[in-house]
Amino acid sequence: MSPPNLRIEPLPGYSATIGRLVGMLSYARQTLLAAVAGLTTAQLDHLQDEASNSIGALLAHSAAVERVYQCLTFEERPPSDAESAAWAAALELGDKGRALLREQPLEHYVEELTTVRRHTLAELARRDDTWLEQPMKIAPNMNAHWAWFHVGEDEINHRGQIRWLRARLR
Amino acid sequence: MSPPNLRIEPLPGYSATIGRLVGMLSYARQTLLAAVAGLTTAQLDHLQDEASNSIGALLAHSAAVERVYQCLTFEERPPSDAESAAWAAALELGDKGRALLREQPLEHYVEELTTVRRHTLAELARRDDTWLEQPMKIAPNMNAHWAWFHVGEDEINHRGQIRWLRARLR
Repeated sequence: MSPPNLRIEPLPGYSATIGRLVGMLSYARQTLLAAVAGLTTAQLDHLQDEASNSIGALLAHSAAVERVYQCLTFEERPPSDAESAAWAAALELGDKGRALLREQPLEHYVEELTTVRRHTLAELARRDDTWLEQPMKIAPNMNAHWAWFHVGEDEINHRGQIRWLRARLR
Repeated sequence: MSPPNLRIEPLPGYSATIGRLVGMLSYARQTLLAAVAGLTTAQLDHLQDEASNSIGALLAHSAAVERVYQCLTFEERPPSDAESAAWAAALELGDKGRALLREQPLEHYVEELTTVRRHTLAELARRDDTWLEQPMKIAPNMNAHWAWFHVGEDEINHRGQIRWLRARLR
Protein backbone atom coordinates (compact mmCIF):
# COMPACT_ATOMS: atom_id res chain seq x y z
CA MET A 1 0.00 0.00 0.00
CA SER A 2 1.38 3.42 -0.89
CA PRO A 3 1.67 5.93 1.95
CA PRO A 4 -1.22 8.40 2.19
CA ASN A 5 -0.75 11.70 0.38
CA LEU A 6 -0.42 14.24 3.16
CA ARG A 7 0.18 17.29 1.03
CA ILE A 8 -1.77 20.44 0.39
CA GLU A 9 -0.77 21.82 -3.00
CA PRO A 10 -2.25 23.04 -6.29
CA LEU A 11 -4.34 20.34 -7.98
CA PRO A 12 -4.82 19.65 -11.70
CA GLY A 13 -8.07 21.11 -13.01
CA TYR A 14 -8.24 23.98 -10.50
CA SER A 15 -6.54 27.34 -10.19
CA ALA A 16 -3.69 27.20 -7.65
CA THR A 17 -5.36 28.50 -4.52
CA ILE A 18 -8.67 26.77 -5.29
CA GLY A 19 -6.73 23.52 -5.70
CA ARG A 20 -5.21 23.83 -2.24
CA LEU A 21 -8.65 24.48 -0.81
CA VAL A 22 -10.07 21.47 -2.63
CA GLY A 23 -7.26 19.38 -1.11
CA MET A 24 -8.37 20.44 2.36
CA LEU A 25 -12.06 19.84 1.64
CA SER A 26 -11.28 16.42 0.22
CA TYR A 27 -9.15 15.44 3.20
CA ALA A 28 -11.92 16.53 5.57
CA ARG A 29 -14.49 14.54 3.60
CA GLN A 30 -12.31 11.42 3.49
CA THR A 31 -11.96 11.50 7.27
CA LEU A 32 -15.69 12.14 7.75
CA LEU A 33 -16.57 9.10 5.66
CA ALA A 34 -13.99 7.01 7.53
CA ALA A 35 -15.61 8.09 10.81
CA VAL A 36 -19.00 6.67 9.79
CA ALA A 37 -17.95 3.65 7.72
CA GLY A 38 -20.02 0.56 8.45
CA LEU A 39 -22.65 2.21 10.66
CA THR A 40 -26.14 0.68 10.59
CA THR A 41 -29.36 2.67 10.36
CA ALA A 42 -29.96 2.07 14.07
CA GLN A 43 -26.52 3.40 14.88
CA LEU A 44 -27.01 6.42 12.61
CA ASP A 45 -30.31 7.15 14.42
CA HIS A 46 -28.99 6.64 17.96
CA LEU A 47 -29.45 9.57 20.34
CA GLN A 48 -26.82 9.75 23.06
CA ASP A 49 -29.14 11.84 25.23
CA GLU A 50 -32.28 13.90 24.76
CA ALA A 51 -30.38 16.96 23.51
CA SER A 52 -28.05 15.04 21.21
CA ASN A 53 -28.11 14.99 17.45
CA SER A 54 -27.80 11.61 15.77
CA ILE A 55 -24.80 10.81 13.60
CA GLY A 56 -27.15 10.60 10.62
CA ALA A 57 -28.47 14.09 11.33
CA LEU A 58 -24.92 15.44 11.52
CA LEU A 59 -24.16 13.93 8.11
CA ALA A 60 -27.32 15.52 6.68
CA HIS A 61 -26.22 18.80 8.27
CA SER A 62 -22.89 18.80 6.45
CA ALA A 63 -24.60 18.29 3.09
CA ALA A 64 -27.16 21.04 3.81
CA VAL A 65 -24.50 23.55 4.91
CA GLU A 66 -22.67 22.89 1.66
CA ARG A 67 -25.86 23.54 -0.32
CA VAL A 68 -26.33 26.90 1.41
CA TYR A 69 -22.78 27.99 0.52
CA GLN A 70 -23.33 26.86 -3.07
CA CYS A 71 -26.24 29.34 -3.25
CA LEU A 72 -24.24 32.12 -1.60
CA THR A 73 -20.99 31.76 -3.52
CA PHE A 74 -21.91 30.26 -6.91
CA GLU A 75 -25.32 31.84 -7.41
CA GLU A 76 -24.75 34.97 -5.29
CA ARG A 77 -28.12 34.70 -3.58
CA PRO A 78 -29.51 33.45 -0.27
CA PRO A 79 -31.42 30.14 -0.32
CA SER A 80 -35.00 30.50 -1.56
CA ASP A 81 -37.93 29.96 0.80
CA ALA A 82 -38.50 26.53 -0.70
CA GLU A 83 -34.84 25.58 -0.23
CA SER A 84 -34.77 26.92 3.32
CA ALA A 85 -37.85 24.86 4.15
CA ALA A 86 -36.43 21.72 2.55
CA TRP A 87 -33.10 22.05 4.38
CA ALA A 88 -34.39 23.37 7.72
CA ALA A 89 -34.23 20.11 9.68
CA ALA A 90 -30.65 19.43 8.57
CA LEU A 91 -29.50 23.02 9.07
CA GLU A 92 -31.15 23.63 12.43
CA LEU A 93 -30.81 20.11 13.89
CA GLY A 94 -32.30 19.93 17.40
CA ASP A 95 -35.93 18.84 17.76
CA LYS A 96 -36.67 19.12 14.06
CA GLY A 97 -33.63 17.07 13.13
CA ARG A 98 -34.43 14.40 15.72
CA ALA A 99 -37.98 14.11 14.37
CA LEU A 100 -37.25 14.09 10.65
CA LEU A 101 -33.71 12.86 9.99
CA ARG A 102 -34.14 9.17 10.74
CA GLU A 103 -34.52 5.68 9.36
CA GLN A 104 -32.12 6.07 6.47
CA PRO A 105 -29.16 3.80 5.71
CA LEU A 106 -25.62 5.14 5.50
CA GLU A 107 -25.81 5.07 1.69
CA HIS A 108 -28.57 7.70 1.80
CA TYR A 109 -26.36 10.21 3.58
CA VAL A 110 -23.24 9.36 1.60
CA GLU A 111 -25.09 9.73 -1.69
CA GLU A 112 -26.39 13.14 -0.65
CA LEU A 113 -22.92 14.28 0.45
CA THR A 114 -21.40 12.99 -2.78
CA THR A 115 -23.99 14.58 -5.05
CA VAL A 116 -23.63 17.95 -3.37
CA ARG A 117 -19.84 17.77 -3.43
CA ARG A 118 -19.77 16.86 -7.13
CA HIS A 119 -21.55 20.13 -7.89
CA THR A 120 -19.18 22.10 -5.63
CA LEU A 121 -16.10 20.72 -7.35
CA ALA A 122 -17.52 21.33 -10.84
CA GLU A 123 -18.31 24.93 -9.97
CA LEU A 124 -14.94 25.53 -8.30
CA ALA A 125 -13.19 24.12 -11.39
CA ARG A 126 -14.89 26.80 -13.52
CA ARG A 127 -13.64 29.67 -11.35
CA ASP A 128 -10.29 31.31 -10.58
CA ASP A 129 -8.35 32.60 -7.59
CA THR A 130 -9.50 36.19 -8.16
CA TRP A 131 -13.10 35.06 -7.77
CA LEU A 132 -12.14 33.08 -4.67
CA GLU A 133 -10.80 36.02 -2.72
CA GLN A 134 -12.77 39.05 -3.85
CA PRO A 135 -15.46 40.29 -1.44
CA MET A 136 -18.79 38.58 -2.09
CA LYS A 137 -21.45 40.84 -3.55
CA ILE A 138 -24.16 39.65 -1.20
CA ALA A 139 -21.87 39.67 1.87
CA PRO A 140 -18.97 42.11 1.44
CA ASN A 141 -17.33 41.14 4.74
CA MET A 142 -16.95 37.59 3.39
CA ASN A 143 -15.10 36.02 0.50
CA ALA A 144 -15.67 32.65 -1.14
CA HIS A 145 -12.36 31.39 0.23
CA TRP A 146 -13.63 31.85 3.78
CA ALA A 147 -17.04 30.45 2.84
CA TRP A 148 -15.54 27.19 1.54
CA PHE A 149 -13.01 27.01 4.37
CA HIS A 150 -15.99 27.33 6.69
CA VAL A 151 -17.87 24.49 4.98
CA GLY A 152 -14.88 22.22 5.65
CA GLU A 153 -14.39 23.63 9.13
CA ASP A 154 -18.01 22.97 10.10
CA GLU A 155 -17.73 19.43 8.75
CA ILE A 156 -14.57 18.79 10.78
CA ASN A 157 -16.22 20.22 13.92
CA HIS A 158 -19.08 17.72 13.54
CA ARG A 159 -16.69 14.90 12.63
CA GLY A 160 -15.21 15.43 16.09
CA GLN A 161 -18.67 14.98 17.58
CA ILE A 162 -19.35 11.96 15.38
CA ARG A 163 -16.16 10.26 16.57
CA TRP A 164 -17.15 10.96 20.19
CA LEU A 165 -20.65 9.59 19.63
CA ARG A 166 -19.46 6.55 17.67
CA ALA A 167 -17.06 5.55 20.47
CA ARG A 168 -20.12 5.27 22.74
CA LEU A 169 -22.35 3.16 20.49
CA ARG A 170 -23.06 -0.34 21.71
CA MET B 1 -19.30 47.09 16.18
CA SER B 2 -17.76 46.33 12.80
CA PRO B 3 -18.88 43.10 11.13
CA PRO B 4 -16.48 40.16 11.62
CA ASN B 5 -13.83 39.71 8.96
CA LEU B 6 -14.86 36.54 7.18
CA ARG B 7 -12.16 36.47 4.54
CA ILE B 8 -9.28 34.18 3.83
CA GLU B 9 -6.61 36.11 1.94
CA PRO B 10 -2.89 36.93 2.02
CA LEU B 11 -1.88 38.65 5.27
CA PRO B 12 0.77 41.33 5.86
CA GLY B 13 4.01 39.83 7.19
CA TYR B 14 3.57 36.43 5.57
CA SER B 15 4.08 35.06 2.07
CA ALA B 16 0.76 34.79 0.24
CA THR B 17 -0.14 31.13 0.80
CA ILE B 18 1.24 31.10 4.34
CA GLY B 19 -0.92 34.17 5.07
CA ARG B 20 -4.07 32.38 3.94
CA LEU B 21 -3.15 29.44 6.14
CA VAL B 22 -2.52 31.74 9.11
CA GLY B 23 -5.98 33.23 8.52
CA MET B 24 -7.50 29.77 8.85
CA LEU B 25 -5.45 28.88 11.94
CA SER B 26 -6.38 32.19 13.56
CA TYR B 27 -10.08 31.74 12.84
CA ALA B 28 -9.97 28.23 14.31
CA ARG B 29 -8.19 29.50 17.41
CA GLN B 30 -10.62 32.38 17.88
CA THR B 31 -13.56 29.96 17.81
CA LEU B 32 -11.80 27.55 20.17
CA LEU B 33 -11.25 30.30 22.74
CA ALA B 34 -14.85 31.44 22.35
CA ALA B 35 -15.99 27.87 23.02
CA VAL B 36 -14.24 27.78 26.41
CA ALA B 37 -14.63 31.40 27.52
CA GLY B 38 -15.61 31.73 31.18
CA LEU B 39 -15.20 28.08 32.16
CA THR B 40 -14.16 27.38 35.75
CA THR B 41 -11.50 24.87 36.77
CA ALA B 42 -14.21 22.45 37.87
CA GLN B 43 -15.88 22.74 34.47
CA LEU B 44 -12.56 22.30 32.67
CA ASP B 45 -11.94 19.12 34.73
CA HIS B 46 -15.44 17.66 34.33
CA LEU B 47 -15.59 14.17 32.84
CA GLN B 48 -18.81 13.48 30.95
CA ASP B 49 -18.31 9.72 31.39
CA GLU B 50 -15.49 7.38 32.31
CA ALA B 51 -14.05 7.34 28.78
CA SER B 52 -14.38 11.07 28.19
CA ASN B 53 -11.59 13.61 28.03
CA SER B 54 -12.09 16.82 29.96
CA ILE B 55 -12.32 20.14 28.15
CA GLY B 56 -9.07 21.16 29.84
CA ALA B 57 -7.32 18.07 28.51
CA LEU B 58 -8.56 18.81 24.99
CA LEU B 59 -7.12 22.33 25.24
CA ALA B 60 -3.78 20.90 26.42
CA HIS B 61 -3.96 18.44 23.50
CA SER B 62 -4.24 21.23 20.93
CA ALA B 63 -1.16 22.98 22.31
CA ALA B 64 0.83 19.72 22.40
CA VAL B 65 -0.11 18.77 18.84
CA GLU B 66 1.10 22.17 17.71
CA ARG B 67 4.42 21.64 19.52
CA VAL B 68 4.92 18.32 17.71
CA TYR B 69 4.37 19.93 14.32
CA GLN B 70 6.76 22.74 15.24
CA CYS B 71 9.46 20.08 15.71
CA LEU B 72 8.56 18.30 12.48
CA THR B 73 8.25 21.30 10.20
CA PHE B 74 10.50 24.02 11.67
CA GLU B 75 13.27 21.84 13.10
CA GLU B 76 12.86 18.88 10.72
CA ARG B 77 13.11 16.33 13.49
CA PRO B 78 10.76 14.19 15.57
CA PRO B 79 10.19 15.24 19.19
CA SER B 80 13.02 14.18 21.52
CA ASP B 81 12.44 11.55 24.18
CA ALA B 82 12.24 14.27 26.82
CA GLU B 83 9.68 16.22 24.79
CA SER B 84 7.64 13.09 24.06
CA ALA B 85 7.56 12.29 27.77
CA ALA B 86 6.59 15.83 28.72
CA TRP B 87 3.78 15.97 26.16
CA ALA B 88 2.54 12.37 26.44
CA ALA B 89 -0.50 13.01 28.63
CA ALA B 90 -1.73 15.82 26.38
CA LEU B 91 -0.99 13.95 23.15
CA GLU B 92 -2.38 10.57 24.16
CA LEU B 93 -5.25 11.78 26.37
CA GLY B 94 -7.23 8.83 27.80
CA ASP B 95 -6.24 7.52 31.24
CA LYS B 96 -3.00 9.49 31.37
CA GLY B 97 -4.75 12.71 30.42
CA ARG B 98 -7.53 12.15 32.97
CA ALA B 99 -4.93 11.56 35.70
CA LEU B 100 -2.55 14.41 34.96
CA LEU B 101 -4.36 17.21 33.14
CA ARG B 102 -6.42 18.64 35.98
CA GLU B 103 -6.84 21.41 38.50
CA GLN B 104 -5.70 24.25 36.31
CA PRO B 105 -7.64 27.44 35.58
CA LEU B 106 -8.57 28.46 32.06
CA GLU B 107 -5.70 30.96 32.01
CA HIS B 108 -3.21 28.10 32.28
CA TYR B 109 -4.43 26.49 29.07
CA VAL B 110 -4.89 29.76 27.21
CA GLU B 111 -1.39 30.89 28.11
CA GLU B 112 0.08 27.62 26.86
CA LEU B 113 -1.90 27.84 23.60
CA THR B 114 -0.86 31.46 23.14
CA THR B 115 2.82 30.86 23.83
CA VAL B 116 2.97 27.95 21.42
CA ARG B 117 1.09 29.87 18.74
CA ARG B 118 3.36 32.90 19.06
CA HIS B 119 6.32 30.69 18.14
CA THR B 120 4.41 29.14 15.22
CA LEU B 121 3.54 32.52 13.75
CA ALA B 122 7.10 33.85 14.17
CA GLU B 123 8.52 30.81 12.40
CA LEU B 124 5.92 30.93 9.61
CA ALA B 125 6.69 34.63 9.07
CA ARG B 126 10.35 33.72 8.40
CA ARG B 127 9.47 31.20 5.68
CA ASP B 128 8.04 31.29 2.16
CA ASP B 129 5.49 29.44 0.05
CA THR B 130 8.14 27.22 -1.55
CA TRP B 131 9.09 25.94 1.90
CA LEU B 132 5.41 25.46 2.71
CA GLU B 133 4.68 23.07 -0.12
CA GLN B 134 7.88 21.18 -0.78
CA PRO B 135 8.00 17.57 0.52
CA MET B 136 9.29 17.43 4.09
CA LYS B 137 12.72 15.85 4.44
CA ILE B 138 11.74 13.71 7.41
CA ALA B 139 8.36 12.72 5.89
CA PRO B 140 8.42 12.95 2.08
CA ASN B 141 4.73 12.06 1.74
CA MET B 142 3.90 15.20 3.74
CA ASN B 143 4.40 18.90 3.25
CA ALA B 144 4.32 21.67 5.83
CA HIS B 145 1.12 23.02 4.32
CA TRP B 146 -0.68 19.78 5.17
CA ALA B 147 1.03 19.64 8.58
CA TRP B 148 -0.27 23.08 9.55
CA PHE B 149 -3.67 22.47 8.00
CA HIS B 150 -3.78 19.34 10.14
CA VAL B 151 -2.94 21.25 13.33
CA GLY B 152 -5.94 23.50 12.66
CA GLU B 153 -8.09 20.57 11.58
CA ASP B 154 -7.36 18.63 14.77
CA GLU B 155 -8.14 21.72 16.85
CA ILE B 156 -11.49 22.19 15.07
CA ASN B 157 -12.34 18.50 15.54
CA HIS B 158 -11.84 18.86 19.30
CA ARG B 159 -13.63 22.21 19.36
CA GLY B 160 -16.67 20.27 18.14
CA GLN B 161 -16.29 17.92 21.08
CA ILE B 162 -15.74 20.82 23.48
CA ARG B 163 -18.96 22.48 22.33
CA TRP B 164 -20.82 19.20 22.82
CA LEU B 165 -19.35 18.73 26.30
CA ARG B 166 -19.90 22.35 27.32
CA ALA B 167 -23.59 22.17 26.40
CA ARG B 168 -23.91 19.39 28.99
CA LEU B 169 -22.16 21.05 31.92
CA ARG B 170 -24.36 21.90 34.88
